[in-house]
Amino acid sequence: AIRASAGELHVADLADLIEQLGHDGRRLLIEALGSDLDPELLSELHGPVLTEVLDLIGPREAAAALSQLETDDAVYVLNEFDDEQQREVLAELPAEDRQALQAGLAYPEDSAGRLMQRDVVAVADFWSIGRTLEYFRREADLPDRFYEIIVIDGERRPVGTLPLDRMLRTNADLPIGMIMEPAEHLVPVDMDQEEVAFLFQQYRLMSAAVVDRDGRLAGVIMADDVADVIEEEVEEDAMLLGGVAETDIQETVWTTTRTRFSWLFVNLGTAFLASAVIGMFDAAIEKIVALAVLMPIVASMGGNAATQTLTVAVRTLATRELTAANARRVVVKEAMVGAINGFVFAAIVGGIGFAWFGDWELGAVFGLSMIINMIAAALAGVLVPVTLDRLGVDPAVASGVFVTTVTDVVGFFAFLGLAALLLL
Amino acid sequence: AIRASAGELHVADLADLIEQLGHDGRRLLIEALGSDLDPELLSELHGPVLTEVLDLIGPREAAAALSQLETDDAVYVLNEFDDEQQREVLAELPAEDRQALQAGLAYPEDSAGRLMQRDVVAVADFWSIGRTLEYFRREADLPDRFYEIIVIDGERRPVGTLPLDRMLRTNADLPIGMIMEPAEHLVPVDMDQEEVAFLFQQYRLMSAAVVDRDGRLAGVIMADDVADVIEEEVEEDAMLLGGVAETDIQETVWTTTRTRFSWLFVNLGTAFLASAVIGMFDAAIEKIVALAVLMPIVASMGGNAATQTLTVAVRTLATRELTAANARRVVVKEAMVGAINGFVFAAIVGGIGFAWFGDWELGAVFGLSMIINMIAAALAGVLVPVTLDRLGVDPAVASGVFVTTVTDVVGFFAFLGLAALLLL
Ligand SMILES: [Mg+2]
Ligand SMILES: [Mg+2]
Ligand SMILES: [Mg+2]
Ligand SMILES: [Mg+2]
Ligand SMILES: [Mg+2]
Ligand SMILES: [Mg+2]
Ligand SMILES: [Mg+2]
Ligand SMILES: [Mg+2]
Ligand SMILES: [Mg+2]
Ligand SMILES: [Mg+2]
Ligand SMILES: [Mg+2]
Ligand SMILES: [Mg+2]
Ligand SMILES: [Mg+2]
Repeated sequence: AIRASAGELHVADLADLIEQLGHDGRRLLIEALGSDLDPELLSELHGPVLTEVLDLIGPREAAAALSQLETDDAVYVLNEFDDEQQREVLAELPAEDRQALQAGLAYPEDSAGRLMQRDVVAVADFWSIGRTLEYFRREADLPDRFYEIIVIDGERRPVGTLPLDRMLRTNADLPIGMIMEPAEHLVPVDMDQEEVAFLFQQYRLMSAAVVDRDGRLAGVIMADDVADVIEEEVEEDAMLLGGVAETDIQETVWTTTRTRFSWLFVNLGTAFLASAVIGMFDAAIEKIVALAVLMPIVASMGGNAATQTLTVAVRTLATRELTAANARRVVVKEAMVGAINGFVFAAIVGGIGFAWFGDWELGAVFGLSMIINMIAAALAGVLVPVTLDRLGVDPAVASGVFVTTVTDVVGFFAFLGLAALLLL
Repeated sequence: AIRASAGELHVADLADLIEQLGHDGRRLLIEALGSDLDPELLSELHGPVLTEVLDLIGPREAAAALSQLETDDAVYVLNEFDDEQQREVLAELPAEDRQALQAGLAYPEDSAGRLMQRDVVAVADFWSIGRTLEYFRREADLPDRFYEIIVIDGERRPVGTLPLDRMLRTNADLPIGMIMEPAEHLVPVDMDQEEVAFLFQQYRLMSAAVVDRDGRLAGVIMADDVADVIEEEVEEDAMLLGGVAETDIQETVWTTTRTRFSWLFVNLGTAFLASAVIGMFDAAIEKIVALAVLMPIVASMGGNAATQTLTVAVRTLATRELTAANARRVVVKEAMVGAINGFVFAAIVGGIGFAWFGDWELGAVFGLSMIINMIAAALAGVLVPVTLDRLGVDPAVASGVFVTTVTDVVGFFAFLGLAALLLL
């Protein structure tokens, strides 16, 4: 019964189901599927679950599945396996497949070479449309799906692309080279996948030819695989900004605890830095307890304002809307927004501070430090990620700690410092 | 010179350039382009910039551009205009185009009806491949680009799709109905665009037929437009989590200031709530100033731990990895992670508290409240977004405030309350 109903699911849905089940459910389902297992299922699974499934099906079955997948998917699956599993599965493969997959694994992680499939539809530019159509009907070993033909010259260098629909609208006698679109977006094998994703999204590509170091056709990248990359990169950024590892969801309690610990540990260091600032003013707090009551508000408002700016800065750096050309304008805009909101909130909290503790000087200190911290927040929120980006560090990773450290330290120092100066 | 070099840019790059320029640069560039303006350029621009460009080119030129675009793009552009601009542009359009665009605008925002283009390639299931190919060569008014044919029955209901590559590999005499893939993922006109994006990503679709309330073919949605939706939705989530509006980047200082203000105002309310908790224990702080020095650390660690959990919960709700089926397991896992890290950090800060202030009871209070707040953080981090999601509220919007309010209030209350109980 399990087998029958699992067989009716689309392979992507089945993969989601398997990822949501616990260990035991997973084992039962895989055993029930038995030899009905669709090879595509493996390429829809991720990290820890994939290794678990391999252990369940064994290297022989895994090798049989891999040899039915396109190279990009097979290399993806193989790469998720641990070293021993890789060796076992590779040993089960016929020599030709093994070499193809080892070549794929040799490309750096996150490179175009990893994303591409080696099966391509490439046709010489002097072929006529009619001859090409005949070739399609005869040739059995074409990729499962293609939308465009890659047009190559005598040296197997891509010179253009021909979308299938354009081919169908044109007279069959014409040579392909006459109606193709000139090759504009060739992808070198070692291009980073984020760069590849940018090309696809910016130019609305369906597929892109990948070339080796000599400019010869090495493979093709398809839009659906790039959609996976985009999701992965966005996920990565979102998770890093939140201080968790990108694979957090599928990890065990123990792995999750360890990876989150390191981030929290860094935060602990910065929290102690902030409390050292408070410690400098303990005499002031002892005299005016209201300071202890109000100081977290200044820090919290700064932290939130900084997070707003930071969110915009990190996203626009990722989508390339924030560049060297407009960085100065963005900084000025953020500083203005921070200053305006700083003044407005200064008036609000100044009034509340006065009403609560009946001390207008305390209200003034409260408001003044709010202005200072909101401007500091705006500047830190944009300058920290831009600087990290220029230094080649992913701004999504580390910006958050730096920025909230700035707003905590500035917030406490401004508020308590002004209080010590003006109220004692 | 501007015109010549701008003419060489891809329309997507030109749109990016225009969005990065200031007002004056934008005017100069648009004037230099003059009548060379590619209609596609409009569909690559966003919000405020698009209205500005329309003011520069005038309604007649805009109408001319719109009538050259596919309906989905034309409707998108028209929708970004303000009401008066819309009326002016519609008045300039020929009646047929006007009706098509008004029909498009009548679909709810963010619905499939808005995303679809009306130009489709639909062929009856009894046609042969040969007849279809002939039709393509004869018919001039096909969409600019297509990858699949929609196969329809006598009532114009979609019954299948036929990828072009499969058609080319098959004998020309066969009827289309025999080799098509049965229609599996039909999109109703009023389906939400997030749902549409999920279908495309999950099933790796290149295009999908859209059907009206009677199940008849209304249009087609293409993968490149869905890629825009995915980017938009991801951007929306990231921005909402950070407490900024999705269009923040292109807004003026004034609009940005106002939208960010409302979020900060909400945060101010919750910050005062937390400081009211501190105010309850002012007598304890007056006696032991170290409490004021250490209390932000408990709150900050809780806030960060909660943000980690929240990030994972919001992302996995969005990608449907977190569902009713595994919610309980995720909550248990988060609570365990929170408890383990809580105990570890309790040991660390307890030790530091003792070393710093030479008071082991203070260290114990510090550590104990850390455990309590880390567990509260884990629970709030997952329960708040899951509850909002069940209530039909976007968990990305409001989770942040609720969750950090919980960790601030619990953090201060646990630390100061235990101190008042055990140290005084
Ligand atoms: Mg999946
Ligand atoms: Mg793939
Ligand atoms: Mg694939
Ligand atoms: Mg692929
Ligand atoms: Mg990665
Ligand atoms: Mg990356
Ligand atoms: Mg990244
Ligand atoms: Mg753009
Ligand atoms: Mg479009
Ligand atoms: Mg379109
Ligand atoms: Mg939405
Ligand atoms: Mg939207
Ligand atoms: Mg959303």
